[in-house]
Amino acid sequence: MASFETKATIATFGGKLLKVSHESSTTGTPMAVNVFLPPSVTSSSSSPKKVPVLIYLSGLTCTPDNCSEKGFLQASAAKHDIAIVYPDTSPRGANIAGEDESYDFGTGAGFYIDATAEPWSKNYRMESYITKELPSALFGSEQFGKVLDKDRVSITGHSMGGHGALTLFLKNPGMYRSVSAFAPICNPTKAPWGEKAFSGYFGKDSGVDEWKKHDATELLKTYSGDKAKLDVLIDVGTGDNFYKQKQLLPENFEAAAKEVGVEKGVTVRYQPDYDHSYYFISTFGADHVAHAAKYLA
Amino acid sequence: MASFETKATIATFGGKLLKVSHESSTTGTPMAVNVFLPPSVTSSSSSPKKVPVLIYLSGLTCTPDNCSEKGFLQASAAKHDIAIVYPDTSPRGANIAGEDESYDFGTGAGFYIDATAEPWSKNYRMESYITKELPSALFGSEQFGKVLDKDRVSITGHSMGGHGALTLFLKNPGMYRSVSAFAPICNPTKAPWGEKAFSGYFGKDSGVDEWKKHDATELLKTYSGDKAKLDVLIDVGTGDNFYKQKQLLPENFEAAAKEVGVEKGVTVRYQPDYDHSYYFISTFGADHVAHAAKYLA
Repeated sequence: MASFETKATIATFGGKLLKVSHESSTTGTPMAVNVFLPPSVTSSSSSPKKVPVLIYLSGLTCTPDNCSEKGFLQASAAKHDIAIVYPDTSPRGANIAGEDESYDFGTGAGFYIDATAEPWSKNYRMESYITKELPSALFGSEQFGKVLDKDRVSITGHSMGGHGALTLFLKNPGMYRSVSAFAPICNPTKAPWGEKAFSGYFGKDSGVDEWKKHDATELLKTYSGDKAKLDVLIDVGTGDNFYKQKQLLPENFEAAAKEVGVEKGVTVRYQPDYDHSYYFISTFGADHVAHAAKYLA
Repeated sequence: MASFETKATIATFGGKLLKVSHESSTTGTPMAVNVFLPPSVTSSSSSPKKVPVLIYLSGLTCTPDNCSEKGFLQASAAKHDIAIVYPDTSPRGANIAGEDESYDFGTGAGFYIDATAEPWSKNYRMESYITKELPSALFGSEQFGKVLDKDRVSITGHSMGGHGALTLFLKNPGMYRSVSAFAPICNPTKAPWGEKAFSGYFGKDSGVDEWKKHDATELLKTYSGDKAKLDVLIDVGTGDNFYKQKQLLPENFEAAAKEVGVEKGVTVRYQPDYDHSYYFISTFGADHVAHAAKYLA
């Protein structure tokens, strides 16, 4: 049975934030995870009933701690009786040359895809880690198996993690009850961050056709799930420099939604003056937890 | 007219967080301050009506940014239409030998008192800065004079800042509408942190009688304000290591309240398992902003 080592247990918003770590066979490294358990789980003396799970995928450079400390999602998750799982953003300590040379590739920048190019393909397999190993480890574990409901899982994320949330949701109909994103990279095949990540993890010779399989705007066009039930919530700040620099391109995601007639299923809110930081995430976090709660009930 | 240099303007919770700096004649250094302005101020096209102010004094090592990012007070302040002022915890860059040698004395550890011993007495004058220069600079400034109500000010703080909030409130009846504190140092003359700070800033030869003038537990015994109207809210986590190490001593503050018959005016809530961190502050921040709001209306 998969097991997690508990590094810290922190009381917050009536529940507990557990900082845990486990050995990942997918990345070949230890992986840190933060898990927020709401009050119904941590304060019940007898065996509590299972709670649904919201997975939060973090952005470039982040660890599980950044959003746990600054995103303020726990306040809303406690209210809605939802657990939050904060995975890490890449393997750490894989000891690959160049791994730590830039903030937007390698450590802290796994992009939630499975690398196919050497030397990254052995460890940088965050798509398989997030969609297969981590959930099976959590739901199969002594610590979390009895309290987390494997059949009620939603996903959200910020920036690179918003790309992760949107693409993993669109690739895997039925895996997640709902999706939302804060300032997501919506069209990475047309953005510098995406181009650098895809050409690095998939190789210089990988074509854009390969890249499109991991691009939310392209995946929306070929979404095989129930289009009538699609309900994507996206917030983007108009003061976000990465939005201004066209790293995020939510307008392309909206255009694709129109193109395939699912514009009713895609809500992009442009929030005046908001930036890319946790000041933005914490402001709209309650809306995103409430959005997930509608589908996790 | 006093003026502040604006370093950043950040949209958050419908209002704006301004990171500003000004030249302090009290400390002889530039002083950083964060000011949260609620939506009624930042979104009003015409001249807005003035809003009351909650001053938040931070703990050891903190800058104005720590609680702005992690305390989550802005969410409640926006709801109650209150501005929050986050001062710094000491002068920075005074260039005094030994200033940066320890986390609990010198830079980041001003203790909200006016040092009388060399070499600290020239710059480390945080009591005068917080009670005199900063408010007069804010309320007299072009940027804030028209929107902050100098007649409605409350104070709160964390740890060393809780000591600051309690002592400045008790020393200055009428200056603040209300006071509350998160894990405050309640009896510094009997705690290692306080002994180090007082013997350093007041001098090795300064007696405990001098120290008691800056000790919340002692000040409560001689409080000259309206005892019938006293309503002090304190939260302390039972998992707080500094509480366990007797750095905080809230039980001594409670005992003093009983001793002078103001126990009805002092509420100390011992929060099970909570630690000393912002996970604790953010959890109970809404209660402390609501406590201030009652008196700032």
